[in-house]
Amino acid sequence: MNKKVDIKKKFDSFSEYWTPKILGEVNDSYVKIFKAKGEFVWHHHENEDEFFLIIKGQLHIKMRDEEVVLNEGEFFVVPRGVEHLPYTIEEAHVLLLEPKGVLNTGNKNTDKTVETPEWI
Amino acid sequence: MNKKVDIKKKFDSFSEYWTPKILGEVNDSYVKIFKAKGEFVWHHHENEDEFFLIIKGQLHIKMRDEEVVLNEGEFFVVPRGVEHLPYTIEEAHVLLLEPKGVLNTGNKNTDKTVETPEWI
Repeated sequence: MNKKVDIKKKFDSFSEYWTPKILGEVNDSYVKIFKAKGEFVWHHHENEDEFFLIIKGQLHIKMRDEEVVLNEGEFFVVPRGVEHLPYTIEEAHVLLLEPKGVLNTGNKNTDKTVETPEWI
Repeated sequence: MNKKVDIKKKFDSFSEYWTPKILGEVNDSYVKIFKAKGEFVWHHHENEDEFFLIIKGQLHIKMRDEEVVLNEGEFFVVPRGVEHLPYTIEEAHVLLLEPKGVLNTGNKNTDKTVETPEWI
């Protein structure tokens, strides 16, 4: 049977940035978390929307024609096909919900690409 | 284009209990919130998992062979097919993620059933 998950406690168990960890699954999606600091990479996901919820700190999501600044307790959905660049000034903790097959760097293959995220 | 959503602010805009409101959509699912107080109804969802994240307070989810008690910042996924009864002692605020077609009372039709949740 599923167990309940204390999101903040899970963030205590790793320290790497931009490395998604899987906390659970809901229908066809994974619930993931990642720590963010500095700049990620411009990318998009062809067929998947991505849900970002800020657990701690502030996350910027730059898109080609706008930028959103997300604070703790706020969420944003990046629609499929929309190029985006997540970045932060200070460390931020983020919960992510996206379909299981999604690669963190979308259409890009970089040193930040994580092929198989770890369950924690 | 999508807008960012401040979850706590959205809770200020309504007062009814057990009445899901839609805040956004991600792939085939809606992001919903509801205020909970007292007891809901025993029900299950035949083909859909439900993701519950506690924004404020405490939510109990009673199942036939166990019960989880969720506090602020914790989530739990009720797997498809599993009968459950959400209830609270005090008021709680909950974020829910589930496929678009899902009825809040699942296989039951009661006075708590909301056929068409409102976008807020």
